[in-house]
Amino acid sequence: MTNIHDLTTPALIVDADALTHNLATMSKALPGARLRPHVKAHKCTALARRQAAHGHRTFTCATVREVEGLVAAGLGDDVLLANEVLDARRLGALDARVTVAVDSEATIDAAAAGGMREVLIDVNVGLPRCGCNPDDAGRLAEHARRRGLRVRGVMGYEGHGMLLPERTTRAQLVADAMERLRAAHAAVGGDVVSAGGTGTYDLNQVATEIQAGSYALMDTAYAKLALPFREALSVLGTVISVSREGYAVADVGLKALGMDHGHSAIDGVQVWFHSDEHVTFAPAGSLRPGDRIRVRPAHVDPTVAYHERLQVVDGERVVESWAVDLRGW
Amino acid sequence: MTNIHDLTTPALIVDADALTHNLATMSKALPGARLRPHVKAHKCTALARRQAAHGHRTFTCATVREVEGLVAAGLGDDVLLANEVLDARRLGALDARVTVAVDSEATIDAAAAGGMREVLIDVNVGLPRCGCNPDDAGRLAEHARRRGLRVRGVMGYEGHGMLLPERTTRAQLVADAMERLRAAHAAVGGDVVSAGGTGTYDLNQVATEIQAGSYALMDTAYAKLALPFREALSVLGTVISVSREGYAVADVGLKALGMDHGHSAIDGVQVWFHSDEHVTFAPAGSLRPGDRIRVRPAHVDPTVAYHERLQVVDGERVVESWAVDLRGW
Repeated sequence: MTNIHDLTTPALIVDADALTHNLATMSKALPGARLRPHVKAHKCTALARRQAAHGHRTFTCATVREVEGLVAAGLGDDVLLANEVLDARRLGALDARVTVAVDSEATIDAAAAGGMREVLIDVNVGLPRCGCNPDDAGRLAEHARRRGLRVRGVMGYEGHGMLLPERTTRAQLVADAMERLRAAHAAVGGDVVSAGGTGTYDLNQVATEIQAGSYALMDTAYAKLALPFREALSVLGTVISVSREGYAVADVGLKALGMDHGHSAIDGVQVWFHSDEHVTFAPAGSLRPGDRIRVRPAHVDPTVAYHERLQVVDGERVVESWAVDLRGW
Repeated sequence: MTNIHDLTTPALIVDADALTHNLATMSKALPGARLRPHVKAHKCTALARRQAAHGHRTFTCATVREVEGLVAAGLGDDVLLANEVLDARRLGALDARVTVAVDSEATIDAAAAGGMREVLIDVNVGLPRCGCNPDDAGRLAEHARRRGLRVRGVMGYEGHGMLLPERTTRAQLVADAMERLRAAHAAVGGDVVSAGGTGTYDLNQVATEIQAGSYALMDTAYAKLALPFREALSVLGTVISVSREGYAVADVGLKALGMDHGHSAIDGVQVWFHSDEHVTFAPAGSLRPGDRIRVRPAHVDPTVAYHERLQVVDGERVVESWAVDLRGW
């Protein structure tokens, strides 16, 4: 049995108990197909299998590579690519039920040309990203049907409200966003209304399925929302330098973390800054070179995407080692 | 011959002419071993081979994996790991000339225990990261010699001045930092004084060798310094959505870019924000879904580290495809 002290650092580690708690808590709130777990947050088929074992056999993806990997792993019962593509040939070639988001005639035509059979109309519900204007949803659904595609319903991601700190503000934003999605759904038809995320999983009363991903591993940004999920993920590092001046340096740099949500956190100290392969923090206290520390990432998704493996740990024992096998595009 | 329009996006691309210009310009300024190219900026043995063909056969690395990869590629004449490690066994096992930075008795003892033969004393010249206090450099060199290690000299990275916009301010900071390194060198001995980077490559008059890496590919942060190197690197993306409201979305998200230096840049438009797999920008102008755009990263190192391959392009032709084979740890 490997001990965490034998791991090459930086190493991505997940606390087995916290992961189990998170998976069970979400499954209780959103059983079965009420949750369509988003794999972009962990990019790991072994973890997706754990989600499937909790009853969730439908998945959400952000990239074609994620879809291909899930299908290859036998998890292709009903996979949604919640993103627009202009070349759908790799998706159309898969022997699985794959649905793709579309928000324009061009993406509908690409889905048809790529050999796909099913689509969701992606609707802008307030986040300036993909998604058609709600007024165009019905027209696009008709266009898709004319192209021989089955329109399963609508999708609309209220990402602009996902990390709002106040629960009541978040709830109001979700309600406004879902009002737009409901109107679009009425024009589109179909039985799927796909939306939501970890920050709104229990606030969204309109979606038939919630696309949450971060809940499984969590990060410091989501931890601020007082959700019932625990921070399961950290990056294990080695202290490589301790200065006379009272700061210390460990080998967890910005190439081992996503930096778009800011610095990571280390219990009991203040993180000063990250370089490519270093984090400087203080006070060093009684730390010495060779000591191991745990660095909690600010944003789970881009952190995981830097690592080849995810080590599942119980205290200091490594109980499983999973490939982060859905990276790339 | 592949055309860039056939590449799966996001795709990391490097302009062949700009790369050639950058390599030639640096080789003229710092010929042969005056430059010790830092591979952390490109993580690519094929690009390191190009640097070797320009006369630079000594290399700098930031991780053990980078050292191993260079040695396996036949580029192990003289490789410096410019970083501290507490477990040097993988380095000591290599059949190549490998030198490691040390800044404490613990890292010296680790180098000796790992079977290494040569070290540089890493000196803090102002950046609060690794590096001993200059006053301790002589004592540490003695400790290393007692442990049977050859002390080649000193290293000191003036990273806190690397991106200062004013050349005169940068020059003054380099002079101050190198004064500290010179004093440490006098106490340590050896013939190597290793320092510098792309931002100070022609300002550092003390270093016997400059550890520049970013000059080969460049990024928008270094581009602000008016150096004679061109921005060779970009991430090719596909426009996947164009809104009625005048903005557009492409598939170059924050998992395809390093975000610690802020947003990327796209010629002629303003980048609004990045999500995991998207960049939203405006004005969309005449762009349509399916159009290709080039996104220039703010920080080269963490951008490259997300990609499996680097495509070398001449206009729209892909002339070479290189593995980014030094990723991970």
